[in-house]
Amino acid sequence: MATITAVSPFAPERFPDLPEVRGVRLAAGAAGVRYKGRDDVMLAEIAPGAALAGVFTRSKTRAAPVLLCEARLAARRAGAPADGKAAIAVNSGNANAFTGAGGRDGAERMAAAAAAAVGADPANALVASTGVIGEPLPAGKIEAVMGDLAGRLDGRAWEAAARAIMTTDTFPKGAGLRVDLGGAEAAIAGFAKGSGMIAPDMATMLAFVFTDAPVAEPLLQAMLAAECDRSFNAITVDGDTSTSDTLIVAATGLCGAARIESADDPRAAPFQAALGGVLRDLAHQVVKDGEGASKFCAVTVTGAESDAAARRIGLSIANSPLVKTALAGEDPNWGRIVMAVGKSGEAADRDRLTIRFGDILVAEKGWVAAGYREADGADYMKRAELEIAVDVGVGAGAATVWTCDLTHAYVSINADYRS
Amino acid sequence: MATITAVSPFAPERFPDLPEVRGVRLAAGAAGVRYKGRDDVMLAEIAPGAALAGVFTRSKTRAAPVLLCEARLAARRAGAPADGKAAIAVNSGNANAFTGAGGRDGAERMAAAAAAAVGADPANALVASTGVIGEPLPAGKIEAVMGDLAGRLDGRAWEAAARAIMTTDTFPKGAGLRVDLGGAEAAIAGFAKGSGMIAPDMATMLAFVFTDAPVAEPLLQAMLAAECDRSFNAITVDGDTSTSDTLIVAATGLCGAARIESADDPRAAPFQAALGGVLRDLAHQVVKDGEGASKFCAVTVTGAESDAAARRIGLSIANSPLVKTALAGEDPNWGRIVMAVGKSGEAADRDRLTIRFGDILVAEKGWVAAGYREADGADYMKRAELEIAVDVGVGAGAATVWTCDLTHAYVSINADYRS
Repeated sequence: MATITAVSPFAPERFPDLPEVRGVRLAAGAAGVRYKGRDDVMLAEIAPGAALAGVFTRSKTRAAPVLLCEARLAARRAGAPADGKAAIAVNSGNANAFTGAGGRDGAERMAAAAAAAVGADPANALVASTGVIGEPLPAGKIEAVMGDLAGRLDGRAWEAAARAIMTTDTFPKGAGLRVDLGGAEAAIAGFAKGSGMIAPDMATMLAFVFTDAPVAEPLLQAMLAAECDRSFNAITVDGDTSTSDTLIVAATGLCGAARIESADDPRAAPFQAALGGVLRDLAHQVVKDGEGASKFCAVTVTGAESDAAARRIGLSIANSPLVKTALAGEDPNWGRIVMAVGKSGEAADRDRLTIRFGDILVAEKGWVAAGYREADGADYMKRAELEIAVDVGVGAGAATVWTCDLTHAYVSINADYRS
Repeated sequence: MATITAVSPFAPERFPDLPEVRGVRLAAGAAGVRYKGRDDVMLAEIAPGAALAGVFTRSKTRAAPVLLCEARLAARRAGAPADGKAAIAVNSGNANAFTGAGGRDGAERMAAAAAAAVGADPANALVASTGVIGEPLPAGKIEAVMGDLAGRLDGRAWEAAARAIMTTDTFPKGAGLRVDLGGAEAAIAGFAKGSGMIAPDMATMLAFVFTDAPVAEPLLQAMLAAECDRSFNAITVDGDTSTSDTLIVAATGLCGAARIESADDPRAAPFQAALGGVLRDLAHQVVKDGEGASKFCAVTVTGAESDAAARRIGLSIANSPLVKTALAGEDPNWGRIVMAVGKSGEAADRDRLTIRFGDILVAEKGWVAAGYREADGADYMKRAELEIAVDVGVGAGAATVWTCDLTHAYVSINADYRS
């Protein structure tokens, strides 16, 4: 079916030029985990003394690699970060999820192989896996290529790494920025995969971001958590959550600036903003590669009781199958937005609700706006990138979330495909 | 597009024979609210002294008719039930939702016209509206036909009433039962509409159930709330919630039995069970008429921390676009069920999770079951009516919810149709 192999209309012409990050080298290779004729393992070597931070799926059925990463990062936070190099190994083709007690063994073998290959402290080795679930991870195949990968590590191998972790993605996703830290310039670069979820490949969202900024580990974790809420936690393709979602940031501190220890440091805010910018860029690429997506839509909610309430209202709109099919049909159907605001469960004043499509005032004071013409709304909906703004009239909370449309291609990919 | 006008594969050959309910008469007629050449208004006359109970959408953007019903039922509960006849008027074609301050006026005019037509106390007149939103209710057209409807009231007009309230439904939905109340036999009969939501008609779920059992109003309300949780609150077509969902029960008490005042009355449990049976029958018909539905699926969750937790896990599975597209594709994709359990946020023991398709043991102890053959699962998925059972291994909570699949027809109905 053509729709399944088609590349997203939002795919960039080529992978972006990403800055080198001092102290980070990458390699990708073909272990034959499941796919033939393509790379399916990525190894990252991270210089000694780096800060590591991570955010993971909140699923109650988290996969073994997620549990391993959570445990190792928690041990570091508990006060015993190992000093040596760190390593991150990621494979596609097998998610090592719902693999029973054997799943832990597979994740640990993969981590040990990565650590041994680059000479990292085993406690500093993190792993992620994406692909089929319910099948044992062929750890031996991954172990077998680690030595080769370690011999080919390269600070510029961003695209190869991004491609190696793809499953149903139709394009590799990378993003990077440079940020001035009071004289010394730090680089931030990373890559991600994810395009909704598809069986047998659970299209987990994975993202790995590297920087040579010197940020204390607790501060890095706090910054990551805050920015994740405004990026990966503010996107939705189908509202479904993988058992393996993983976002890891490593900061080598080798850019030459003095260490940023607290949020009060005047360099903390610009660094966090740049980190957030890279995360949002990657998150938007994941939505734009959403299964069957033909529209990319920002939903901004204002006037809510709190920012958290605004985000929940935004996600209620962004996850609504009726809103998402209206986007697919280029239908300026503001009634479905009213419905989705109502079902969010958050406070909203029906008679003060305002809805805008871009600059077009569609509804206000619980009624269609006097100057609104349906034809204007219909014209607006023909755009590939849309902005819906809703003010719910009860407070000062605000949030933006991002979504794509629900198309025939989504159903084709997920229903017509047999695992 | 053929898929839009096609009748659900689950449509019964004909409307069921429903028992007459002493003290209830109905009529339907054509007011021309929006549709041409079909009935679009239903009037029910209810004998004096009836108990009235209702459950309504929890949407924060509830429509004017819902607010009117809630206020009138609350006033009755506050201690001043009017003694005279009651009336229920329902129109299709216009939902009187998101109609600003004028919405209340329209609902009140419609209620007043219904009360006047049958000689009911205006405080006992309830209304519901379903259809386009954002347009003023043409109350005058509805007022104009009320006298005619009152002149044609008939205790057997169930199908006509059920047809008059349809919007995108592909078949009228009725259900009834008789129940023995210690010698006297009570009848329960009702009808419903709803098939997902579609613009410009918000396919609100409306249901009206009548009985001649004598049940005290507070007890009737409690029974209704409990049974609604196991019927209309346990179904999902697309997870979206209308601004107008309404479920009203009227009990005339004219079957000849002594009044049931409390849940301790030995007749209370059998009556409640029968009421629940009628509600479940109607709710299942709504799912089976879900937009584009080709599969009807019961999802039973056991082993949860509580019944409420089990219901939330069940709805997480039943609302998941990935599970629903797997049903459409006849794909025995248990990995998506694991995912949906995990994202529910409720406690589940990944390594004690058990999944069954009908009698087929698919997965147990965090791993695919030893005897499971994919071909068996694929065969099972070809059935039109499916049962998925999940035990999450942490407690004694249990619940069943019902859903349909997510098909190309759903996208066609909701995306290809322009309002």
